[in-house]
Amino acid sequence: MLQQRLSASAYIEGIQAGKISLLSKAISVVESHRSEDRDLGLSIVEGCLSLQRNSRRIGLTGLPGAGKSTFIDQFGLHLIKAGHKLAILSIDPTSPKSKGSILGDKTRMYHLSQSPNVFIRPSPSGLHLGGVNATTRHTILLCEAAGFDTIIVETVGVGQSETSVSSMVDCLIVLLLAGGGDELQGMKRGIMEFIDMIFITKADGANTIPSQNAAKDYQNALSLFMPFTPGWKVPVIPCSAVTQAGFEIIDRELSAFFDYISKNKILNKRRQAQDIEWFEQLFEQAIWRRIAENSELMESKQYYIHQIAENKLLPLRAVDRLTNQWLNFANSTIEHSNP
Amino acid sequence: MLQQRLSASAYIEGIQAGKISLLSKAISVVESHRSEDRDLGLSIVEGCLSLQRNSRRIGLTGLPGAGKSTFIDQFGLHLIKAGHKLAILSIDPTSPKSKGSILGDKTRMYHLSQSPNVFIRPSPSGLHLGGVNATTRHTILLCEAAGFDTIIVETVGVGQSETSVSSMVDCLIVLLLAGGGDELQGMKRGIMEFIDMIFITKADGANTIPSQNAAKDYQNALSLFMPFTPGWKVPVIPCSAVTQAGFEIIDRELSAFFDYISKNKILNKRRQAQDIEWFEQLFEQAIWRRIAENSELMESKQYYIHQIAENKLLPLRAVDRLTNQWLNFANSTIEHSNP
Repeated sequence: MLQQRLSASAYIEGIQAGKISLLSKAISVVESHRSEDRDLGLSIVEGCLSLQRNSRRIGLTGLPGAGKSTFIDQFGLHLIKAGHKLAILSIDPTSPKSKGSILGDKTRMYHLSQSPNVFIRPSPSGLHLGGVNATTRHTILLCEAAGFDTIIVETVGVGQSETSVSSMVDCLIVLLLAGGGDELQGMKRGIMEFIDMIFITKADGANTIPSQNAAKDYQNALSLFMPFTPGWKVPVIPCSAVTQAGFEIIDRELSAFFDYISKNKILNKRRQAQDIEWFEQLFEQAIWRRIAENSELMESKQYYIHQIAENKLLPLRAVDRLTNQWLNFANSTIEHSNP
Repeated sequence: MLQQRLSASAYIEGIQAGKISLLSKAISVVESHRSEDRDLGLSIVEGCLSLQRNSRRIGLTGLPGAGKSTFIDQFGLHLIKAGHKLAILSIDPTSPKSKGSILGDKTRMYHLSQSPNVFIRPSPSGLHLGGVNATTRHTILLCEAAGFDTIIVETVGVGQSETSVSSMVDCLIVLLLAGGGDELQGMKRGIMEFIDMIFITKADGANTIPSQNAAKDYQNALSLFMPFTPGWKVPVIPCSAVTQAGFEIIDRELSAFFDYISKNKILNKRRQAQDIEWFEQLFEQAIWRRIAENSELMESKQYYIHQIAENKLLPLRAVDRLTNQWLNFANSTIEHSNP
């Protein structure tokens, strides 16, 4: 897969020097499922950890058809004109393979893909250790080390992906269409808890007034909830990739948001909390993988679940039995393997 | 604490015969922190598991001042007049001791506490195995076995308690006051995900119109979200414990809700899912308690968390190290203890 194996420091130096080809190769190492790539991948990312990162990590989510690609294509150009270097990482939970969608992304974001200040990369949602979290989080760090100051992590607003995204960005934005509130209903319940901004897309032509009305409805609904970022009023902004309506308001709100979370130390605390929470999740996953590999234990567990469902066994009693079985099993296994 | 120790079957027979004094004593055994009471408690609850339960388990939550006690006092009388037998379990997460609040509950619900068809009991939110979940869930089963057909689990809508409550009732109701939407903001974010009904309390006198307006606002906001119970439209009902306004609508909606979830098999599936999920949570807790007892491991974990917070270590690398330490420790401990 990788013809040429470089050392971790060669990758790190190349990335710091802004060499896009080395950045791409490093991401491939990080995404690789091959065990011999794992340590190299971790070492590359570790080498990039200490670099200063004055970046904005922005998550964008929305149902298929909400106009994510068109928005990013046009708003991305707008950001680049303002002097930003932009990395776009797309997570598509419906296609675990990354290969097919690279071309797809470049077609989807045609105008943007022509610029040298843009790096577009789909993130595979694989099932290896850490899943989509690990590769995308590590790719963010690599892109930042390569000098990209704005990272957009884009995902379809279905399933688990947007919760993952909210745990790795500084600012989560939902794209919605005007349409009487049906959009949020199709999305995962609870997404409202994590968002910092709502954009109502396709607010042009005959759709301008309905979009403004939808924005008002959402703004009213939002006033009933605590914002995810304490003290931040979630703005609802109608916008159009065609007319660029709303782009300047978005600029202003993004600047205001990042100023706010920087000045209030929320930015650093949020990133630290995300890393620590992720670490705890990974540790739990590692322990539970060990337990799930114990097939006798899992058979007992299934049996107890049936008994519980039939009101024949109390959950608390089942836990006593299962925990005892686990302890006995762990003891006897290790005993046998130590002659 | 318990002067007289009865056998599990004596308790079970007494409870089935509707003897309130034995029900009370059995709940004390279930709530007891003493290890010698644990098995007796589980056996009593197990004996009640197989009994048919045509009950309604209703959760009531709301901030202090929302009028929960007054509402329950008056609406409870209303239910009893209609022939129901009512058990009220109060969870106060702010007072872990139960003793002090028994009298408090009976004072809070003065009219209700005079009726022989009402059983009022505070649930301690202790820290022993299973916590508030275990004792309250078991108390629900005991009350049902004793013939109570309506169980109201009441809690203050702050902290973890209302999430616990939503995992043990068939129907979760939030009590709110008219007041421009400030109430939900003070409650735990995400509570909207779990509710089946909203009551706007104190809708009498000068507060009638504001309450009706608040109800409309909430109804509009709710239309943007998927209901917790699929296919059920969450009603928002203004009501008054003073004038009994809204009580008949509440009656109708409660009947409609339980008819709906019974006919659609949602009721049984929800209870089964609650039990199974609780079992899985308890099992996780049991395993994690074992891990948390390992002080060397916990020291390493804290050290890694500091390193991660300072951007000196990748979470994925820290997990590799911590998992290896755990495996080595487990092996060596068991090796030493098996000569």
